[in-house]
Amino acid sequence: MNKITATYTDLYELTMAQVFFKKGHNKRAVFDYYYRSNPYSGGYAVFCGLENLLDMLKELIFEKRDIDYLKSLNFDPEFLDYLKDFRFNGTIYSVSEGEIIFPNTPILQVEATISEAQIIETLLLNILNFQTLIATKARRIRSIAPTQNLMDMGLRRAHATGGYYASRAVMVGGFNGTSNTIAGLDFGIPVSGTMAHSFIQSYGDELEAFRAYADIHPDNCVFLVDTYNTLKSGIPNAITVGKELEARGKKMLAIRLDSGDLAYLAKKAREMLDAAGLDYVKIVASNQLDEYVIKSLFDQNAPIDIFGVGTSLVTGKPDASLDGVYKLSEYDSHPRIKISDNIIKVSLPSRKQVYRMLDSKGMFFGADAIGLRDEPTFDLMLHPFDNRKQLDLSDFGHEPLLHKVMENQKILEPRRSVTEIAEYSQKRLAQLPAEYKRFENPHIYKVGLSQKLKDQRDKIIAEHIH
Amino acid sequence: MNKITATYTDLYELTMAQVFFKKGHNKRAVFDYYYRSNPYSGGYAVFCGLENLLDMLKELIFEKRDIDYLKSLNFDPEFLDYLKDFRFNGTIYSVSEGEIIFPNTPILQVEATISEAQIIETLLLNILNFQTLIATKARRIRSIAPTQNLMDMGLRRAHATGGYYASRAVMVGGFNGTSNTIAGLDFGIPVSGTMAHSFIQSYGDELEAFRAYADIHPDNCVFLVDTYNTLKSGIPNAITVGKELEARGKKMLAIRLDSGDLAYLAKKAREMLDAAGLDYVKIVASNQLDEYVIKSLFDQNAPIDIFGVGTSLVTGKPDASLDGVYKLSEYDSHPRIKISDNIIKVSLPSRKQVYRMLDSKGMFFGADAIGLRDEPTFDLMLHPFDNRKQLDLSDFGHEPLLHKVMENQKILEPRRSVTEIAEYSQKRLAQLPAEYKRFENPHIYKVGLSQKLKDQRDKIIAEHIH
Repeated sequence: MNKITATYTDLYELTMAQVFFKKGHNKRAVFDYYYRSNPYSGGYAVFCGLENLLDMLKELIFEKRDIDYLKSLNFDPEFLDYLKDFRFNGTIYSVSEGEIIFPNTPILQVEATISEAQIIETLLLNILNFQTLIATKARRIRSIAPTQNLMDMGLRRAHATGGYYASRAVMVGGFNGTSNTIAGLDFGIPVSGTMAHSFIQSYGDELEAFRAYADIHPDNCVFLVDTYNTLKSGIPNAITVGKELEARGKKMLAIRLDSGDLAYLAKKAREMLDAAGLDYVKIVASNQLDEYVIKSLFDQNAPIDIFGVGTSLVTGKPDASLDGVYKLSEYDSHPRIKISDNIIKVSLPSRKQVYRMLDSKGMFFGADAIGLRDEPTFDLMLHPFDNRKQLDLSDFGHEPLLHKVMENQKILEPRRSVTEIAEYSQKRLAQLPAEYKRFENPHIYKVGLSQKLKDQRDKIIAEHIH
Repeated sequence: MNKITATYTDLYELTMAQVFFKKGHNKRAVFDYYYRSNPYSGGYAVFCGLENLLDMLKELIFEKRDIDYLKSLNFDPEFLDYLKDFRFNGTIYSVSEGEIIFPNTPILQVEATISEAQIIETLLLNILNFQTLIATKARRIRSIAPTQNLMDMGLRRAHATGGYYASRAVMVGGFNGTSNTIAGLDFGIPVSGTMAHSFIQSYGDELEAFRAYADIHPDNCVFLVDTYNTLKSGIPNAITVGKELEARGKKMLAIRLDSGDLAYLAKKAREMLDAAGLDYVKIVASNQLDEYVIKSLFDQNAPIDIFGVGTSLVTGKPDASLDGVYKLSEYDSHPRIKISDNIIKVSLPSRKQVYRMLDSKGMFFGADAIGLRDEPTFDLMLHPFDNRKQLDLSDFGHEPLLHKVMENQKILEPRRSVTEIAEYSQKRLAQLPAEYKRFENPHIYKVGLSQKLKDQRDKIIAEHIH
């Protein structure tokens, strides 16, 4: 791929757009982005990818080769002329990147001519679904390792160039850095890395390999100790070179364990390092880690300071995808919904605002209330489907979550670094009560509707049930 | 990411390379690429991604911004001068793209200075692991739907730009096309697409929407019939417009079912279409499909002609990754292995050749034999670890699988289209006996060693066990 151009889309966006264009059926449409279930059977997700998306939308064009290709697919010449000048001129309302989000509430709304809104659909879903999936995974890992150093090492097992965006998303999810050099370059992410087994193998002699490394990188020594035998060879050799570094006024940073029983080896390594007077040397663990393995290591009191996490992190195992969707909620000022046999999958019409309820201590109360964008704040939240259930909101703070982030090809908010986004996300997660954060059967965050929104939706449902 | 440059790598490749460069420890190295377990608990994998990898390696450089960035990370000025002129000059031996491959046999060998070989490691693993994962998934789906039309619709749930490579890999795995327009453009893949629910919703009236579409795209009508009510509204409206198309001398191509019980709805739809004289109209099914769901649909005799497969396909669910590794097997003409507590994970030394055993009918016998590259063909294959087990190969055909594909910055083999690669892959899979292809507990394909290779490995193991 040379770069992301507007043919980074499902073909049907273009066949539909041609009909809209040719038929003069190209009025203003509103689409909602939301997802249906939390990844990893968890209680929340971390919204991620917005900045990348807006940057792409700002630059999105059909280049000559795109137009030529579409011509070869027999698209209409007038429509292709329209695409030559295509720019995304729509308005986007969104929650902030890093926000803690929940299923079935609008995360983002796009308002644009329906052609424009369709053409960007695939890109929008592609970028937001993936980064949200990965930021959520990273945040789960961070939540059980609050003070440890967490490093992304996943690029080799990532989904091709998707790994580039994964390395950004893990930072939003609270990681400290990545092995992914180009992501470091483009996103201003801290990068780190020292040696692989092949480095030591190439010398044949482990001690010689460590010494060669220490000679060139005396300030960045993390010795990988499991190439031959962790306890009998790797750690003793690391200690030898660590003491040699001390003699040069330098300090070895860490050893890395990459196989075997990490809990057992970390304890032994800690003892051996401490006994050698190297109590400042940290222990890095890697090898098939995820939030459950790390939790188990802590349960066993494994003295690990730094975790290198790879495959599970950057591929979002075991889910591997977020089920985010993009549904039409208004066309030419007429509210629209997607009917479904399954009432839970019926979408919500119109331009909306989402209010997060805060208790007197500023904690999330456990409910997002969705209303029409222009209706006054409301104090009664209705269950989306169960008419017996409602909640009085008058005692809670109402925090609107959706705000305008793009209009007239301009990004409206100041750029934040990934660190700032991560800090925001962490602060927001701290407002979420613990019962929504546990891994097993987390409490279900409520989503409700205003009377006006519910009435509007139910009216359209009634119209479609003949 | 502007484009893939040589900083598309784990930082440790560069910290190691700096040591190699500064220490004059930069002799010729050989690395093996192989994987350890078949994805999806299956009996094989489909090798994919080679052409993309070689194209990237041919162009791989450190641009000025890469060098500037590495300078900011305090890399050594002399080393950075070396990187300024970096080109991958190595030699690559590989099995053909599309080959049916098995765990623990070398799929590809890289021979280059150890710095070069390290710098490309991450990119190589990133591209080959992912595309092999996805081509294998696609081939599994193809294997249970041998004659149906299979369409990739996964871009929106793919791992960001990884979806671009996924759409190529599914073609190698036997798919017929994709919704991914830019992949169609760059890889010469057939693309298709018609309409989403939002198209119909925007009109409010389903019949009006179908008519508008048929007016603009009379030769490409696939009507999505589940926006309101599949049997009461969608199919009857599609039939109405299908008859109107007939009156214009046109033929509606298909209807698409995207929700509900696909087996039941497909049968009903077939009856309704046939009763209306539209027996030529095909039925497309989509919505959370994978090889198991499609098999179940066939077991129920669902009359589905075309499958649109998305999330599971392009994310390689449930595995989401292939465990491919890259291990040093030789340095400066000295054989090297990675020792492990787990004997199955001990790597194989030296430059090697892999022979596939063929029976008298040209079918795979069920064994790949690995020998030293330069030893004569051997007739005795030894079990890698169990000294009691050996196999006489004298009655079998010996087909060498690894051949030189890149040397001196040149790609040595003629380019093949994805269709040609897919045809080769299908032909090879037809040579694999059925017991290796079943989904449940497939037969395990054997891998064995020549006496010379085994002796060499065992000698190095003995040297490292002090």
